[in-house]
Amino acid sequence: MQQDLDENTVTAAVLEQMANTPNPRLKQVMESLVKHLHDFARDVDLTPEEWLYGIAFMTEIGKTCTPSRQETILLSDTLGLSALVNALHAKKNLAKATDPSLLGPFYRAAAPMIAAGGSICATPGQAPEIQFYGQVQDSSGNPIPHAQLTVWQTDAEGFYDMQLHGEEQMDHRAMLETDASGHYSFRAVRPLGYYIPMDGPVGRMINAQLRHGCRPAHTHFLISAPGYAELVTSLYFGDDQYIGTDTVFGVSRSLIIEPKMDAAAPISGIPAVHYVFTLSPQTAEGGGRVGADPSQLVKA
Amino acid sequence: MQQDLDENTVTAAVLEQMANTPNPRLKQVMESLVKHLHDFARDVDLTPEEWLYGIAFMTEIGKTCTPSRQETILLSDTLGLSALVNALHAKKNLAKATDPSLLGPFYRAAAPMIAAGGSICATPGQAPEIQFYGQVQDSSGNPIPHAQLTVWQTDAEGFYDMQLHGEEQMDHRAMLETDASGHYSFRAVRPLGYYIPMDGPVGRMINAQLRHGCRPAHTHFLISAPGYAELVTSLYFGDDQYIGTDTVFGVSRSLIIEPKMDAAAPISGIPAVHYVFTLSPQTAEGGGRVGADPSQLVKA
Repeated sequence: MQQDLDENTVTAAVLEQMANTPNPRLKQVMESLVKHLHDFARDVDLTPEEWLYGIAFMTEIGKTCTPSRQETILLSDTLGLSALVNALHAKKNLAKATDPSLLGPFYRAAAPMIAAGGSICATPGQAPEIQFYGQVQDSSGNPIPHAQLTVWQTDAEGFYDMQLHGEEQMDHRAMLETDASGHYSFRAVRPLGYYIPMDGPVGRMINAQLRHGCRPAHTHFLISAPGYAELVTSLYFGDDQYIGTDTVFGVSRSLIIEPKMDAAAPISGIPAVHYVFTLSPQTAEGGGRVGADPSQLVKA
Repeated sequence: MQQDLDENTVTAAVLEQMANTPNPRLKQVMESLVKHLHDFARDVDLTPEEWLYGIAFMTEIGKTCTPSRQETILLSDTLGLSALVNALHAKKNLAKATDPSLLGPFYRAAAPMIAAGGSICATPGQAPEIQFYGQVQDSSGNPIPHAQLTVWQTDAEGFYDMQLHGEEQMDHRAMLETDASGHYSFRAVRPLGYYIPMDGPVGRMINAQLRHGCRPAHTHFLISAPGYAELVTSLYFGDDQYIGTDTVFGVSRSLIIEPKMDAAAPISGIPAVHYVFTLSPQTAEGGGRVGADPSQLVKA
């Protein structure tokens, strides 16, 4: 016989209905989700009007997603959930690899290949250049030759190629390899920070919270090599005004860089960023890209 | 300067960015939501792959919503959140009104008016009839004359008119009024329980949890009168096999009825359900329909 459900007993009733879930991990995740979701509603004494607002908000989040826009990820990012999942994943990384950061919505596979010292700009020389150089190594400090780097960032005005040219033309992104001693180097413009998309439901939330909605300038890296876990990270420019208040909480102190004149850099006369990336061994669990290709998600 | 965010400190960083929210209630709700959401992710040690699955799932929930289908409400219903919000709302009701229940997605305004003792069936006599009768009263037991009742339910096979005829033709729904002494009565068929929509993401979740996905048979009521809070509730048939395991947790013991032969009923020869509805005074907070007209939500 049905017990008389009240605001406390309803939780046990839901868990009881889920008790026969055959997949033990699904059972564990859903039990925890229901407990925390119910605790939240009881904690704030959620009213029917607020519940209805939340239903409409989450419906709009899904409906705002397109093949080139992933509002659900943006919500996760701005609530700090993506950064939290990244941090939980990094903690398991006993090999002390480079900290990960958000993949973001602007990753594209098959960027143009460039040689060592080449530029990631489709038309170099349009803005003052900087250079990145360093090494990819394993957790014992041994160089990893022929590791593959995919690099992408905004132009000097803060726009990704996809925002300016759609899918037509790639710019400010490239693929390159480390050499036989694990070294890499490339030229780029100094990227600019930018607003997250503010014209959807997440933007309304950010405005209602009086948040600035900006990310500090950064350069994305996806680094892979056979036998190592794929590393998805970004390097953040320390002199950006938003370095301490990234709207999506992607910045770690270990990922902050500042370009400076550097006599050891491979190219003379332009500011350099020196950074050594450390990969961890491949595990059974696999890579894990938090913030994934939105087109895959929407189709999924 | 940005602190180095880890899986614990990221929560405080998010709360700090939300600290200037001018609306105090929005601040309170979002702070609690972030804390519980982060606690959930830490509690289960959510992996990047699981996070990605959740992103795709929530995106599909929004995309499955149409003017006549509200998958986000269905998710809230099947996780017991809707019933919990209803229970929190009912608890504030010091006047001891009738327990509320879910409005559900099949409510329609402007159902046909019928006179006392009339049938809610468009073509009466197609299936064995039952009758509902009783009174609408205030919390002191005083009858409420000319209260308006909107009644809707499935046909004898478990289908709502909208599922069979779209928006074209109303059936098994009506509006009626209490008489000068607060009494109401109408005829109906015995409704049948039914499956929630199982062809979307919520249906996949229900299947993965080995839940039956059924609701017990019930008749919906929306009752209003000037000066009283709108009551949204349902009466549930106690002999239904799913009365103890409603997939959306809508059943309260006080709402369970069983039709029986009743010499006091206004119509002789058919089983009767006698039920007295108690309305609470209108409050500043207003009614609160948990489970609302999906077309309003999708447009919102």
